[in-house]
Amino acid sequence: MITLAAIQYSPVRAGIRDNLATIDVLTRTVRTDLLVLPELANTGYFFTDREELLPLAEDPERGAFCSWMRGYAAEHQTVVVGGFAERDARDRLFNAALIALPDGSARVYRKTHLFYKEHLVFEPGDSGFFVVEWAGYRIGAMICYDWRFPESSRTLALRGADVIAHPSNLVAAASLWGPAMAMRAIENKVIVVTANRAGEETSNGETLRFTGESRITGMNGAILSIADPTEARGIVADADPVATRGKAFNAFNDLFADRRPDMYEC
Amino acid sequence: MITLAAIQYSPVRAGIRDNLATIDVLTRTVRTDLLVLPELANTGYFFTDREELLPLAEDPERGAFCSWMRGYAAEHQTVVVGGFAERDARDRLFNAALIALPDGSARVYRKTHLFYKEHLVFEPGDSGFFVVEWAGYRIGAMICYDWRFPESSRTLALRGADVIAHPSNLVAAASLWGPAMAMRAIENKVIVVTANRAGEETSNGETLRFTGESRITGMNGAILSIADPTEARGIVADADPVATRGKAFNAFNDLFADRRPDMYEC
Repeated sequence: MITLAAIQYSPVRAGIRDNLATIDVLTRTVRTDLLVLPELANTGYFFTDREELLPLAEDPERGAFCSWMRGYAAEHQTVVVGGFAERDARDRLFNAALIALPDGSARVYRKTHLFYKEHLVFEPGDSGFFVVEWAGYRIGAMICYDWRFPESSRTLALRGADVIAHPSNLVAAASLWGPAMAMRAIENKVIVVTANRAGEETSNGETLRFTGESRITGMNGAILSIADPTEARGIVADADPVATRGKAFNAFNDLFADRRPDMYEC
Repeated sequence: MITLAAIQYSPVRAGIRDNLATIDVLTRTVRTDLLVLPELANTGYFFTDREELLPLAEDPERGAFCSWMRGYAAEHQTVVVGGFAERDARDRLFNAALIALPDGSARVYRKTHLFYKEHLVFEPGDSGFFVVEWAGYRIGAMICYDWRFPESSRTLALRGADVIAHPSNLVAAASLWGPAMAMRAIENKVIVVTANRAGEETSNGETLRFTGESRITGMNGAILSIADPTEARGIVADADPVATRGKAFNAFNDLFADRRPDMYEC
């Protein structure tokens, strides 16, 4: 049994210093084995001008927010998964998540499915879906709109994920994406930790409202912990990641062994 | 806009004559462009002895129930999708669905994912998922437990299905499979017609209870029509199959064009 946590708040657009201060306060309220932060947790979300985001984006090796996540992981012996705007050596931007392990190592997931005007600033992710292992449990990451494609969580689960960390800035109604996360959990028998943001942001006269309700969804689809639509807080729940691994549910059926990939269009 | 219908009842195990009489009465209560009947609609469901089911199973070309479905399709100019036990020329048994068109043609879908003790009597389906077109709309079929695999409905949708006919004998709680069908509809933007059976059946001292609540699920996940857990009745709803085809939902996103198969494990 491990403790999982998600942090919800309303980032200030381009307010990196304020956002890091908020994250620092909120993360003190939880003790956890896995800490999940929202998508683009330090910069805010709604950028439509690449040139505006470029100086805010960071190198995962040296950037301030990624360094903070790495430091938190080492200090608290916690896996941290948090969304950030990545700037690579060629000045390409990715909507990314750092998966920082307690041993100081880290990997970067780059969002596979870009949503809406993200297309104006980010490159489509090229990392693919992967799983990291720490202390005997296995974590994969997907970001926000990746939820819409059953292939995202399926791919992570087939690659061994017990827990899917899901940094998000969801504008979809929670009545839509919430049951969807339950279904992703059920169809793969995995735990899903969705750290969604609250609040709203305006860019070029267009306002997006984010729907909060961050939640930890158990492998049977049950909500283990949930935030309300607007509050800034951490939520925590205990779950057994190893229990996700037995995909058989009677003497004849096994969720993964029953799959027939030769019959599927991919 | 077309009319869709599902028929729910409680088949009598091995009571082919009674079941056909029930179907005949219930189908008179609906006028529809697509009629969906439950899984194994004429024989009943719970057979654990191949030798017992063999004489009840039928050749889709000549069997009484398949002939009835073909006749109904021609007489009412309606597409009929109904589940039956298929016996092929080599005496193999399949959990199958006949898709009968008004022009007298028909195709057979053989259930891809077998559930529980179906493994004792049926061969795994080898037809694959396919789509038929009639009067400008496109119909695919999946049977019962196929729902559990997002790949089933995804494959049908990618192959062009507007409507998924879903003959079922579901023992899962409707609180589980109902929201699942909503998610299958939403993630693919398709209409789903689930004809589930009611009642219970006993075989070798084991009793299965079927959960009814047949439903027609719109492409946005809304329940357009639903039966209660036990009643014998037809349900109908109108829907526009062609409206399922535009998978774009803003100027940047399209549910199918956004897919990245090179990133998926299949």
